[in-house]
Amino acid sequence: MSDKPISVQEISQHNKDTDCWIVVDGNVWDITGFAPEHPGGPGIIYKYAGRDATKVYNDVHSPNIIKNNLPANCLKGRLDSSTVTEEWSRPLPNETPNAAPRSAEEKPPLDSIINAHDFEIAAKNSSTAKTWAFYSSASNDLITKDANASLYTQVYFRPRVMRRVEKITTNTNLFGHPLSFPLIISPAAMARLIHPDGELALGRAAKTRHIIQAISNNASYTASDIVSQEEVKDYPFIFQLYVDRQRHKSEALLKRINGHANIRGLMVTTDAAAAGKREADERVKADESIQNPMMTTKAKNDKKGGGYGRLMGNFIDPNLNWADVAWLRTQTDLPIMLKGIMSADDVKLALDHGLEGVVLSNHGGRNLDTSPPALLVLLEIHARFPHIIAEHHPNSPAVKAGLKRAFSILVDGGVRRGTDILKLVCLGAVAAGVGRPALFATGYGQQGVEQLIDILKDEFEVAMRNCGLTCIEDCGPEYVNTGAIDRLVVKSRAHPYAVSFTGPAREMKL
Amino acid sequence: MSDKPISVQEISQHNKDTDCWIVVDGNVWDITGFAPEHPGGPGIIYKYAGRDATKVYNDVHSPNIIKNNLPANCLKGRLDSSTVTEEWSRPLPNETPNAAPRSAEEKPPLDSIINAHDFEIAAKNSSTAKTWAFYSSASNDLITKDANASLYTQVYFRPRVMRRVEKITTNTNLFGHPLSFPLIISPAAMARLIHPDGELALGRAAKTRHIIQAISNNASYTASDIVSQEEVKDYPFIFQLYVDRQRHKSEALLKRINGHANIRGLMVTTDAAAAGKREADERVKADESIQNPMMTTKAKNDKKGGGYGRLMGNFIDPNLNWADVAWLRTQTDLPIMLKGIMSADDVKLALDHGLEGVVLSNHGGRNLDTSPPALLVLLEIHARFPHIIAEHHPNSPAVKAGLKRAFSILVDGGVRRGTDILKLVCLGAVAAGVGRPALFATGYGQQGVEQLIDILKDEFEVAMRNCGLTCIEDCGPEYVNTGAIDRLVVKSRAHPYAVSFTGPAREMKL
Amino acid sequence: MSDKPISVQEISQHNKDTDCWIVVDGNVWDITGFAPEHPGGPGIIYKYAGRDATKVYNDVHSPNIIKNNLPANCLKGRLDSSTVTEEWSRPLPNETPNAAPRSAEEKPPLDSIINAHDFEIAAKNSSTAKTWAFYSSASNDLITKDANASLYTQVYFRPRVMRRVEKITTNTNLFGHPLSFPLIISPAAMARLIHPDGELALGRAAKTRHIIQAISNNASYTASDIVSQEEVKDYPFIFQLYVDRQRHKSEALLKRINGHANIRGLMVTTDAAAAGKREADERVKADESIQNPMMTTKAKNDKKGGGYGRLMGNFIDPNLNWADVAWLRTQTDLPIMLKGIMSADDVKLALDHGLEGVVLSNHGGRNLDTSPPALLVLLEIHARFPHIIAEHHPNSPAVKAGLKRAFSILVDGGVRRGTDILKLVCLGAVAAGVGRPALFATGYGQQGVEQLIDILKDEFEVAMRNCGLTCIEDCGPEYVNTGAIDRLVVKSRAHPYAVSFTGPAREMKL
Amino acid sequence: MSDKPISVQEISQHNKDTDCWIVVDGNVWDITGFAPEHPGGPGIIYKYAGRDATKVYNDVHSPNIIKNNLPANCLKGRLDSSTVTEEWSRPLPNETPNAAPRSAEEKPPLDSIINAHDFEIAAKNSSTAKTWAFYSSASNDLITKDANASLYTQVYFRPRVMRRVEKITTNTNLFGHPLSFPLIISPAAMARLIHPDGELALGRAAKTRHIIQAISNNASYTASDIVSQEEVKDYPFIFQLYVDRQRHKSEALLKRINGHANIRGLMVTTDAAAAGKREADERVKADESIQNPMMTTKAKNDKKGGGYGRLMGNFIDPNLNWADVAWLRTQTDLPIMLKGIMSADDVKLALDHGLEGVVLSNHGGRNLDTSPPALLVLLEIHARFPHIIAEHHPNSPAVKAGLKRAFSILVDGGVRRGTDILKLVCLGAVAAGVGRPALFATGYGQQGVEQLIDILKDEFEVAMRNCGLTCIEDCGPEYVNTGAIDRLVVKSRAHPYAVSFTGPAREMKL
Repeated sequence: MSDKPISVQEISQHNKDTDCWIVVDGNVWDITGFAPEHPGGPGIIYKYAGRDATKVYNDVHSPNIIKNNLPANCLKGRLDSSTVTEEWSRPLPNETPNAAPRSAEEKPPLDSIINAHDFEIAAKNSSTAKTWAFYSSASNDLITKDANASLYTQVYFRPRVMRRVEKITTNTNLFGHPLSFPLIISPAAMARLIHPDGELALGRAAKTRHIIQAISNNASYTASDIVSQEEVKDYPFIFQLYVDRQRHKSEALLKRINGHANIRGLMVTTDAAAAGKREADERVKADESIQNPMMTTKAKNDKKGGGYGRLMGNFIDPNLNWADVAWLRTQTDLPIMLKGIMSADDVKLALDHGLEGVVLSNHGGRNLDTSPPALLVLLEIHARFPHIIAEHHPNSPAVKAGLKRAFSILVDGGVRRGTDILKLVCLGAVAAGVGRPALFATGYGQQGVEQLIDILKDEFEVAMRNCGLTCIEDCGPEYVNTGAIDRLVVKSRAHPYAVSFTGPAREMKL
Repeated sequence: MSDKPISVQEISQHNKDTDCWIVVDGNVWDITGFAPEHPGGPGIIYKYAGRDATKVYNDVHSPNIIKNNLPANCLKGRLDSSTVTEEWSRPLPNETPNAAPRSAEEKPPLDSIINAHDFEIAAKNSSTAKTWAFYSSASNDLITKDANASLYTQVYFRPRVMRRVEKITTNTNLFGHPLSFPLIISPAAMARLIHPDGELALGRAAKTRHIIQAISNNASYTASDIVSQEEVKDYPFIFQLYVDRQRHKSEALLKRINGHANIRGLMVTTDAAAAGKREADERVKADESIQNPMMTTKAKNDKKGGGYGRLMGNFIDPNLNWADVAWLRTQTDLPIMLKGIMSADDVKLALDHGLEGVVLSNHGGRNLDTSPPALLVLLEIHARFPHIIAEHHPNSPAVKAGLKRAFSILVDGGVRRGTDILKLVCLGAVAAGVGRPALFATGYGQQGVEQLIDILKDEFEVAMRNCGLTCIEDCGPEYVNTGAIDRLVVKSRAHPYAVSFTGPAREMKL
Repeated sequence: MSDKPISVQEISQHNKDTDCWIVVDGNVWDITGFAPEHPGGPGIIYKYAGRDATKVYNDVHSPNIIKNNLPANCLKGRLDSSTVTEEWSRPLPNETPNAAPRSAEEKPPLDSIINAHDFEIAAKNSSTAKTWAFYSSASNDLITKDANASLYTQVYFRPRVMRRVEKITTNTNLFGHPLSFPLIISPAAMARLIHPDGELALGRAAKTRHIIQAISNNASYTASDIVSQEEVKDYPFIFQLYVDRQRHKSEALLKRINGHANIRGLMVTTDAAAAGKREADERVKADESIQNPMMTTKAKNDKKGGGYGRLMGNFIDPNLNWADVAWLRTQTDLPIMLKGIMSADDVKLALDHGLEGVVLSNHGGRNLDTSPPALLVLLEIHARFPHIIAEHHPNSPAVKAGLKRAFSILVDGGVRRGTDILKLVCLGAVAAGVGRPALFATGYGQQGVEQLIDILKDEFEVAMRNCGLTCIEDCGPEYVNTGAIDRLVVKSRAHPYAVSFTGPAREMKL
Repeated sequence: MSDKPISVQEISQHNKDTDCWIVVDGNVWDITGFAPEHPGGPGIIYKYAGRDATKVYNDVHSPNIIKNNLPANCLKGRLDSSTVTEEWSRPLPNETPNAAPRSAEEKPPLDSIINAHDFEIAAKNSSTAKTWAFYSSASNDLITKDANASLYTQVYFRPRVMRRVEKITTNTNLFGHPLSFPLIISPAAMARLIHPDGELALGRAAKTRHIIQAISNNASYTASDIVSQEEVKDYPFIFQLYVDRQRHKSEALLKRINGHANIRGLMVTTDAAAAGKREADERVKADESIQNPMMTTKAKNDKKGGGYGRLMGNFIDPNLNWADVAWLRTQTDLPIMLKGIMSADDVKLALDHGLEGVVLSNHGGRNLDTSPPALLVLLEIHARFPHIIAEHHPNSPAVKAGLKRAFSILVDGGVRRGTDILKLVCLGAVAAGVGRPALFATGYGQQGVEQLIDILKDEFEVAMRNCGLTCIEDCGPEYVNTGAIDRLVVKSRAHPYAVSFTGPAREMKL
């Protein structure tokens, strides 16, 4: 690593997209080659071309990210602080508006927050417009994002009374790791945007509350940062992987993951073959590129939008396919779940390919608008492949008797209440995941996340008791009434009456 | 009872949660031990630690409550009024805002009120924020509370014309006690919050209008206060019981109830195994605890909310179960109904356990959000256990012929119109109950409640006449069209297509 | 008729409800005995006790009404105009507000009005609050009133193209009387409230546009006034009858009706056994009675409301029943339809009792809230008694061949567009009726009503052409898609799954 | 052509509807005979009687239109510019308001526009009230217009994951002409109202983006203007025809069309037998005629509205019928599709009459309100005539094997997203059409239209990838879940339960 002192005068000359240096924490980096691949888009880097980007970098990334991602020869030297001028240090004119919270309302005290919606409102008002756009946005017209949440409200319980429900237990487990109740933190990117502790806080809260954090491939902190914290020593985690177009990168990453004994499972995302069009996110992006006169070329995708999500997905391999399951097995001994499954057919394929489970998910509605809410897919499994749940649910008699192997179905998207979780568990989900709610709670750091989990667990317990349920093993579909949504559930491979016109069904592309 | 005069100086020193005296009606009570069990939460008591709580006590409770609930040795003496100082008597700073009505609009004259909605609006505008929150709140997202009312509007009548409907009778009876029409006042707590006469007024109005009041276990007045009023002498009442974790307390209470000849029935609430999360209520609570610096410990449930409802339910036994029916029979000879039944299975169990009836209810949506509206449960009974209504309805030929015993199904939740009542009666309910509307009408005292009942009866008569019905005995399901909600009705014990994965159905916990 | 001059001083002394004189057009009437029976309620009369009511009378009634309704000995004499004082003539303080239009917006020019909604908005803004309340109000929560209109919008056409539709004919007939298209003006009371010409204008417009007016029993003008106009000489009318509790009054009225050769049919209303609770109407009423200090007694129905509708219905016989069909036949030779039928069973009874037709109607939602929209009843006939339409529709082969007698089904309620009319005709209605829209159009006099009819006819023609239909005889159910509302249609006498508990079905009360 | 100079004094005298001259581009035209046939109504012409109409003419029409439409003897001479006075040249008082954009908001920069909705908002704010009314209006209550768009949002995808979707192709073709993806520009009238380039820009954008423009019969530019542009040389177009009441005019027009080698198909509109009642359009019209004192006669249709759409449709032959297919074949060798088909029966007739395809369309909801959205008709074909799609879809095995002839189904109405297009393609549509969105994008000229197409294509690609689809041939109904709308789909020729009363089905009128 070069220690050569470099003057502001020199740095300032490398201020174009074709020759771009930035300063981070006193180090001077030539970032020209990396900028176009920057998951957050090159625009934000070019804004700081020839300048000090320390503050904006630290708002988003952990200190190790830049060192891990740039080759050593990109480090040009150390900033010669004696050459710093007032002019050079002056904040960019549009930094302030971007940094300002969306609302002038004060962030409410944590004690006054009593449900997941409150956390969302607090985050909406206290985060910057850009962060809010990134967290809250979803694909196109938000049909799927909204349906994710609203479908739960259309399912009634069928509660039983006059049962001994003083002592109940919500304990369960995932791959043998105990959970205090059937909740995990779904992988979600860039938690540092809302709080400096970011994913570190999520991990610590998962530990104190005995649930499991699934770490995003795109977390602001590296998985190593998160799982190596003293506070979470030996506590189990799951890692979520986007398979890279350059497989060797994924292989290197998995080698690092394998090196952490407390990472106990892998979640491979399958629904991001194409990054969704998250329009709220793209609008913020668009404004920014307009304000950025330093870009000499126009981004190629200006006309079709170029939000965070789309750009961050550039490295994801759209050719990931069922044949890759074998390759994955050569890279890790961890149990593997596929995340982003949206059809019962693919659940069956996952089972048939020997995977340990799936996460029914539509990526929070962020990738394909009008993709089906996971609750509908869960019901489709019942309608079409009942053996998957009846014989492979970890609590099923066949699995308990050792006659069948366990296959775990997780669900995320739209989960906002303990009642939502109980409905999913009654229908055979091993656990529910919360993504955005956990991010929003991170705005209050570890304590906020703990409070969110406490709230959901309390709601879950109240719902169990008032349904007459005392343990997870007793939860079954006879406790929910899905009459309002049954017409939305797919019941057969073929469309119920539309005819095929594409000839004999093609082989799946492997 | 101690008459020892105690000075303000001494009282003032007992101003902590660990040592807490208050003055009520000139009596000085050591309330340290009771405060944590206070149904309304300890916070409100600690606010008055070392001070005179007469006014705030009388806003909520009848004079006898404190004497009945505290052991004699908690009475420390009489306030020495000569020692009272201006400083000591000064109202607490936050008393005024709490006491102010929510709206500046004047309470409209009673004559201008023409339906149940008007009473609700009047109550909303004229009660304090805290009272309104307690009365109006329901669980979580109010899905069930709203559905309770809206489902009725989706059921059409099938009216018949050209019938002699000048002379009709709406008379019916409950357990042999005549009702002028099929309405009861559902048990609802704390009516004194809205009017000093509270449940006393409800009882008197029930008498003059010939319907039946079901007295809440948590009424602001004791059942004795209510049924012993001269104005209601010999008039029948029903008492609603929450079974206490400490059974001897329930036994003592039932002994008192048995002592009142005009209490003619018992309604045992079964749906409050866990108190619901009534968020509007909890928000008021939360604000208050913030303003209260006298609490040395933080309430344990701060993070998961601690509203009135939740706190008031602390004493309720979550282990109440079907085996307790036998115990209840040893405590009273009154006919017993189970209240809060939300599934046809439990209706059948109630019949099979020899009970006299049930109240289909979800506690006004206050306990478990997305629990089913009672109308759906009533329809489920038809679909699954038709004999319960066909053979056990008090007006059925089998019961009239003495071949079967009568089993009465009552319904509450969301009833706002006489048309709602007629629909329920046509579907086999013996009577409908109104809870919140009666509380809201209590804001105008006895006269308000009478007017509410008059309005509902008039609406009921108009609906009967315009449906071509002349007496309750003729009301049957052929007069209602439930096509809009039939898909929401449960038709079988098992989910219609979701498979069981929990092994052979477990025995019910008894 | 007495011509005795009477001084203002004398008249002024008869200013109590127990002794009440009023002056109308210079005549002094003792109205004490009639006031309690006044269809518009006694309150409005008592306000003018001892005073000159000419203006307010003429706003509502035709000159002949008072003479027809009061015995001759109630005419006390003529106002001695020389005794009139300024004080006596001064308008009542609350006359002005009541008389002011609801909105300050100018009534738009007739040319700018292009649909039925426009007429409604114009009427809403330009009529007095009281008139608007009377016209627009409906029962309780307006569920039925709103559904009447909204159900039509859920029915899709199944249009056919490539047909010769230049020359089409919309001609049809009712009881042999030609209609330029299948529309009638439904009977609606008190058209003079909105325009001095009132029902006179409706009749003249019906004539020029070749449709039929059904004259309300409660029209502001007498049927004689209307049908005897020179402009409508020999043009056919229908008269709508409320059967009076005092049958001799109905007999006298029918005798007068029989005397008009151009009244060609009778519509007997059956759905007004009990007057509905029209709350908007009652609220206006309530305000007025508060302002009226001259009433010495309080109206008995103050607490349950006492709107126009309810009061005007006092004379209607709630005991009208199927046996009365025979009595009706003895009173007139006119073809008779029953109006207000809301079930297929009653349609069948009407056919079986030999009547000439029915009007499926729920009184514009004014009498029983959540009674079914007529469109659902029309579909119920198809589902349950297909022969009624297949064999008795005037255009059916059986009727045309003389094998079956014709039975005409009319429909009203919520009809606002020509497309609504075409849907009804396709489903077997002989004609649709418009009530409120015609009243609203009357605000512009005869020309307004003509324009409304022109608009509806034009919309009807456009819809016919674009459906590929060229004449009424070709309109059939294969041109409409009712899939969105089929679940709301009753398919059997019994409820589809709810069981009977009332014993063997009772005989109909006759 | 006359070159005679004519003075302003003389021109000014021809200022009545009975004698009406106008000046356009310096030429003086006697337009008296043509004005009543003016597709845009005579009112706008009479406003300029005796004056210079150059500006308002050019806002709407191409220079050639007036010469093509008026006989040579109507050209009276050239304006003698030396006689022009300030008074004569002064703009009409109401020109400014009409010309002003509806909103003061600036038209947003094209780069900030990221979806079709944005183009609509931009057009709404930047176009004149009259243009907006014409473009945006639809029939009656907009039920069909709104349902067109909203039905797509109720269809869920059934996405498959883990497929190789890096390389996908969206290529397809229409009648053998390649399309970069399954989109066409639906014919829409008067694009010049929003931009001077009008349909010229649409054609150029279609070329650069490799989709096909269907040119409206009522385009502001002639088809010749459009297809002869140098930029679109040899590029294929489709021409949309309204068959004229005067068939010889259509024959002449088709002869001109046949003369352009790059017009490769004909779309004959069948759903405009009667022009719909587009009320927003009519209201603008109505206002204008009020302000126009120069009309000596009142337009005959004042009372039933006289909007653009209605007037422009006057020449369309309402007698077009299936027998005319043979006549059409004699006039052109182009493949012919029928546009505006709204029932599966008519699709079958089109196939049976040997046509090359249909456009399922309800004219954007502009002609018959509550006509069915095309998506429902597409599903009806599957339910009723499965062979049409299974055996005649251009990609079907039978067509590819040469066993059946191809029959192409296109769909338009409400298409706003690439996901909408993919759903249609999965259900058998060869392509989707966009009408209004393309007009709105034309506000930005050719570049705007290109951007719209780019956006839709990008959305389409994202949807394909995220559904696991790599080429159009693989798209089938097993990728969509229509459970939410299946109840709306017609399943049989007869109504499912309503009975026929019109006798034996009549022969179709030919």
